[in-house]
Amino acid sequence: MNQTNEERIKNLLENFNKESLQPLWTLEHDIMPFKPKPQSVAWLWKWDKLYELAEEAGEVITLDRGGDRRAIALANPGLGGMPFATETLWMAVQWLNGHEVAPAHRHTPQAIRFIVDGAGSYSTVEGDRVYLEKGDLVLNPPLLWHDHGSDSDERAIWIDGLDIPLTKYLNANFFEPMGKDVQEVDTVKNFSVLKYGAGTMKPAWEREKPKYPPMSTFKWSRTEQALNDLASSGDSSPYDDIALEYVNPLTGDPVMKTFSCWIQMIRPGVHTKAHREVCSTVYFVFEGSGYSIIDGVKFEWQKGDLFIIPNWKCHEHVNPTGERAILFSINDRPTMDLLDKYREEAYTENEGHQKVNATFDPSKK
Amino acid sequence: MNQTNEERIKNLLENFNKESLQPLWTLEHDIMPFKPKPQSVAWLWKWDKLYELAEEAGEVITLDRGGDRRAIALANPGLGGMPFATETLWMAVQWLNGHEVAPAHRHTPQAIRFIVDGAGSYSTVEGDRVYLEKGDLVLNPPLLWHDHGSDSDERAIWIDGLDIPLTKYLNANFFEPMGKDVQEVDTVKNFSVLKYGAGTMKPAWEREKPKYPPMSTFKWSRTEQALNDLASSGDSSPYDDIALEYVNPLTGDPVMKTFSCWIQMIRPGVHTKAHREVCSTVYFVFEGSGYSIIDGVKFEWQKGDLFIIPNWKCHEHVNPTGERAILFSINDRPTMDLLDKYREEAYTENEGHQKVNATFDPSKK
Amino acid sequence: MNQTNEERIKNLLENFNKESLQPLWTLEHDIMPFKPKPQSVAWLWKWDKLYELAEEAGEVITLDRGGDRRAIALANPGLGGMPFATETLWMAVQWLNGHEVAPAHRHTPQAIRFIVDGAGSYSTVEGDRVYLEKGDLVLNPPLLWHDHGSDSDERAIWIDGLDIPLTKYLNANFFEPMGKDVQEVDTVKNFSVLKYGAGTMKPAWEREKPKYPPMSTFKWSRTEQALNDLASSGDSSPYDDIALEYVNPLTGDPVMKTFSCWIQMIRPGVHTKAHREVCSTVYFVFEGSGYSIIDGVKFEWQKGDLFIIPNWKCHEHVNPTGERAILFSINDRPTMDLLDKYREEAYTENEGHQKVNATFDPSKK
Amino acid sequence: MNQTNEERIKNLLENFNKESLQPLWTLEHDIMPFKPKPQSVAWLWKWDKLYELAEEAGEVITLDRGGDRRAIALANPGLGGMPFATETLWMAVQWLNGHEVAPAHRHTPQAIRFIVDGAGSYSTVEGDRVYLEKGDLVLNPPLLWHDHGSDSDERAIWIDGLDIPLTKYLNANFFEPMGKDVQEVDTVKNFSVLKYGAGTMKPAWEREKPKYPPMSTFKWSRTEQALNDLASSGDSSPYDDIALEYVNPLTGDPVMKTFSCWIQMIRPGVHTKAHREVCSTVYFVFEGSGYSIIDGVKFEWQKGDLFIIPNWKCHEHVNPTGERAILFSINDRPTMDLLDKYREEAYTENEGHQKVNATFDPSKK
Repeated sequence: MNQTNEERIKNLLENFNKESLQPLWTLEHDIMPFKPKPQSVAWLWKWDKLYELAEEAGEVITLDRGGDRRAIALANPGLGGMPFATETLWMAVQWLNGHEVAPAHRHTPQAIRFIVDGAGSYSTVEGDRVYLEKGDLVLNPPLLWHDHGSDSDERAIWIDGLDIPLTKYLNANFFEPMGKDVQEVDTVKNFSVLKYGAGTMKPAWEREKPKYPPMSTFKWSRTEQALNDLASSGDSSPYDDIALEYVNPLTGDPVMKTFSCWIQMIRPGVHTKAHREVCSTVYFVFEGSGYSIIDGVKFEWQKGDLFIIPNWKCHEHVNPTGERAILFSINDRPTMDLLDKYREEAYTENEGHQKVNATFDPSKK
Repeated sequence: MNQTNEERIKNLLENFNKESLQPLWTLEHDIMPFKPKPQSVAWLWKWDKLYELAEEAGEVITLDRGGDRRAIALANPGLGGMPFATETLWMAVQWLNGHEVAPAHRHTPQAIRFIVDGAGSYSTVEGDRVYLEKGDLVLNPPLLWHDHGSDSDERAIWIDGLDIPLTKYLNANFFEPMGKDVQEVDTVKNFSVLKYGAGTMKPAWEREKPKYPPMSTFKWSRTEQALNDLASSGDSSPYDDIALEYVNPLTGDPVMKTFSCWIQMIRPGVHTKAHREVCSTVYFVFEGSGYSIIDGVKFEWQKGDLFIIPNWKCHEHVNPTGERAILFSINDRPTMDLLDKYREEAYTENEGHQKVNATFDPSKK
Repeated sequence: MNQTNEERIKNLLENFNKESLQPLWTLEHDIMPFKPKPQSVAWLWKWDKLYELAEEAGEVITLDRGGDRRAIALANPGLGGMPFATETLWMAVQWLNGHEVAPAHRHTPQAIRFIVDGAGSYSTVEGDRVYLEKGDLVLNPPLLWHDHGSDSDERAIWIDGLDIPLTKYLNANFFEPMGKDVQEVDTVKNFSVLKYGAGTMKPAWEREKPKYPPMSTFKWSRTEQALNDLASSGDSSPYDDIALEYVNPLTGDPVMKTFSCWIQMIRPGVHTKAHREVCSTVYFVFEGSGYSIIDGVKFEWQKGDLFIIPNWKCHEHVNPTGERAILFSINDRPTMDLLDKYREEAYTENEGHQKVNATFDPSKK
Repeated sequence: MNQTNEERIKNLLENFNKESLQPLWTLEHDIMPFKPKPQSVAWLWKWDKLYELAEEAGEVITLDRGGDRRAIALANPGLGGMPFATETLWMAVQWLNGHEVAPAHRHTPQAIRFIVDGAGSYSTVEGDRVYLEKGDLVLNPPLLWHDHGSDSDERAIWIDGLDIPLTKYLNANFFEPMGKDVQEVDTVKNFSVLKYGAGTMKPAWEREKPKYPPMSTFKWSRTEQALNDLASSGDSSPYDDIALEYVNPLTGDPVMKTFSCWIQMIRPGVHTKAHREVCSTVYFVFEGSGYSIIDGVKFEWQKGDLFIIPNWKCHEHVNPTGERAILFSINDRPTMDLLDKYREEAYTENEGHQKVNATFDPSKK
């Protein structure tokens, strides 16, 4: 027993290992870093390439082949090849051929669809069929049956946002095919939008506050009006310019429990200030062009591009053009808020603007 | 001490009285009746008469004369001459001459205005000036400074709804004149409507849930659209047909804490079912004509009329015409809900329709 | 028609009256005063007198005689002879003879009982029978069946607190006798206290947040411990010294929707600061003696006395003795909070202490 | 371009990979399984071994050596050597030598301590020093400064529970040493327990509902009383027998946002029914012995042992002895509830009892 202290420590660590134990003191700041160190990286995908590959998938992949949705997911290069945009969020481009049907299923992941081009397609959520138009946001709360289809000769294309990575991490995934392609449909089209879409008023006889928005869809015409109105008010966010968050009008809460949807107008000539937040965001460029600076790297974006702002990375947005830019995005801030994990920090140097050290180069994973 | 029991009881009651005491057993069911027995009565005021008197007031009463608002209040004949529409609610017609100013003040009663005819008039609430248009609903949460004025040659006329009777009962009234006619005004007109009016989305950087709706006004164009949409959905209330409740879009709650505002379309040919509720309602006929049956009495109403449904009185609405009827109303159900006093009961006899025993005769107070 | 303006105004007012209308400008500050002007007055009832009259009632009034509870209510001299302690609150002394039964009924008014002397009596609320001990607080949420009885030879005596005046004002009263004296009783005595009484922990399988506290009774031993602990913490209220509010431990809310219950220790030598509030309070002196100054009038109280602090009256409490004083009280602050009517104001002159102008004289109603 | 469809698909997948994209259809049910498939496994650690290693660590590891807490964490064999008890939860044994100090720091992970043996030690959380006694639960909400120390010659030992794995996954970790060993201390010991510990009443002047329980500690004497009372009530959970959840008494919510603490008595002879849940649990055997069956495997436990029930594994508890068994545990159900991920399922075969297929053998990782 004439061991030195060092020998005893070595033995102790071996015994810990043998007994499925781990001391805190050897890895305290790996597991509890002083500041967040996300694995996911800032990244950008070009629309042209995405579209080309989606189109090819539309030709060669049928919907009965290994999966029931023709969805092509962003795979953040920092996340080891998993189809996850960030640690918590999934974002994909979905392609539906004319007269095709994506069969009915349901699942616990919370889901939204932002329509790039509807072209005669529809989504049915629990019997409520809505025809998809460019710029619409369609909601899919957990465990509601949903299927998609097309009455048109043309393809439809949209962006899917889900909390698949978070649900997988939490081991909370349940998935159920309906066993038939298309569910029964309510007689009135857009029923939930007609009944609940006003936002500032509600059917007087409905007394419950639903967990999710009572209408399945936020129509683009209303969204665009809201953006223009907010711009006219003269108010704006220093970090996000004309930024609106979609809400459940019967509670004021984000549309999903785990993530939120935003629509944002970066006005011509606007250069926002930089800040960083404990949340991650996936952007889709709906209209216009510009660039974002993320931790000193310039990400130039154009219509259709998708890009990612990881957790706790400083970011600012610029629209150097003469036309408005419109960005749709999802972020996991609701998860952070509910679990009391959110923090934010303004970038205070250089009047709030980062120096650009590099331009994004996708060849450098 | 050789008193009989009756003598002792008589003495006891006298002693109670002397000592400012009261036995429960002598008046238990006066103060705790088996069912509600409101003092306020169902009543109806005709618009022609109201208008004629308001016009006369516009000529002979100036706004510096014994009061700062030219408001003519409904005085429920059951309430002893007090200017109270029901036990809890105040409803008045307010008349503002062209180029007149109703000076700035603030108070704890919660207030709304429903615009009958705006004609170039405005309301300013805490610096937020809104030009009034027919059918607009303007909110005035407690203790916000407000003044009204007109840029036009014409008179404006609107309906005032407040919880003055309730506030008086609760001894919670505070009233403060600003000491000047007109407050400072924000540079952007309709600021709060532009910033917050969307209802289904909110400025993303605003994180608080405000106690009252963040926008001062619900514009009629949006209200009418919502009525039409709800009618198109095919859903409706058996008691109120196409009935919408104005809500705070950041909470889903009624616009005021003590009372709620509704807008209702009784479609041509509709005859609703009867029920009764622990709450009282004051109706303003914004458009169309029809009648309501309140405890077996028929109240015929036309555009501009006002009428009252007291607490726990059975009521049903009928539109026998070929045109839509639109009713604006306020009710104290939020007070009942918050204090856990609300109850309701369907009228189940005769397929839900009361027999008409009489027609309202205003000469019989 | 050559009327003067004064004549026209006179006519107008007559016409208003005829049409059941009332102008705001003639009585604006009667119905909307600049500050609250309650009708109820500060008052105090001596226990000796109350007890003597209650005892006499115990002898001459049987429980089948014109009422089912032998309750003697405080009738605030400002409220016109009604048995109301304040505009919203009812407070009564209830006397139950040994082996007597107060038969089962239920009602919408919210109710509590504070036990002065239990002596083998019990209350049963929805089958949950609790034996009453001195200092216990028993809850009676709306529409729960309840009856009282005694297994002892001795009389029991307690204080009843209800929102009868408020419920009457709101026309929300429903009352129902059960039709039998005593309801079925759960096999386990004090069931709800045993199951839910811990306060800091809850049965893990119960997921709902109940509207009212899940246990029917707050036992005095726990209450006294809490008072002593709070006193030991060194913290206290400048206005109320060691003041605890009973709460629903599953929500943190007051025990009733319309009123709250407090227990308060005024420590020996303490003289609190004065303030005034938009709420009214009825006090019962459970232990000790002292005095309160209400709007400059000194109210001396001893064990068993009851007294009232009306709305918006300045008040401060003094314990000039060497023994602790313990005050139980109910107040309508929850009503004010829920309806957004609460305000408070510190008395800032003279280091927060009012001058005493008079001593309460009950002969001057 | 005369490729076959298979060739085109192969090319497409290669291009996806090159472009950091991933098709849904190749791995849909890996990332969205039909039912949860957790990586963490059911496991059990024996107290004798844990104690022996902790004691050795007490001798050879000083608190300035590579970490500031002598905490030895459970490393679930399913989680690749990370010191994580489950995917979301951290559980460790912490050993503090007599007269030792664990220096002040703060962090975003939410933390609790359950005291195995206090022996003159204390925890100070934001100036509020509490002396630790066996069975106490001490809370450490995020970003509150805390340090531990001992006034005694003896070692203290406790169980640490934190959401370190979840916080790491969410990239929400912030950690800050105070730069000194011991923070300033309030003059009154156990201040927060004295002020807020009652649970069923609160200081009347405190109006806010705090995000975390206002008292730092739940004392064992109260906990034990609550267990005995609940047992006396005759009510119990079919799955967990006499199970109490610690709550924030001002909201009724779990003590932490991300995880909850339970104390459970399995009475002599009780054999609970089996069920499974979307949440994971780490158990510490505070008193007594018995066994649990987890997915058909028998885990025998005795005083001091720790064991894990992973997500969606069927489990039931048995106390075959004549003495009560008391289990303390933490579980991540609040995370699941807040994010709308919770589900549960009763095991319905064989009257709710699983067949035992094996007994836990720690040598088979």
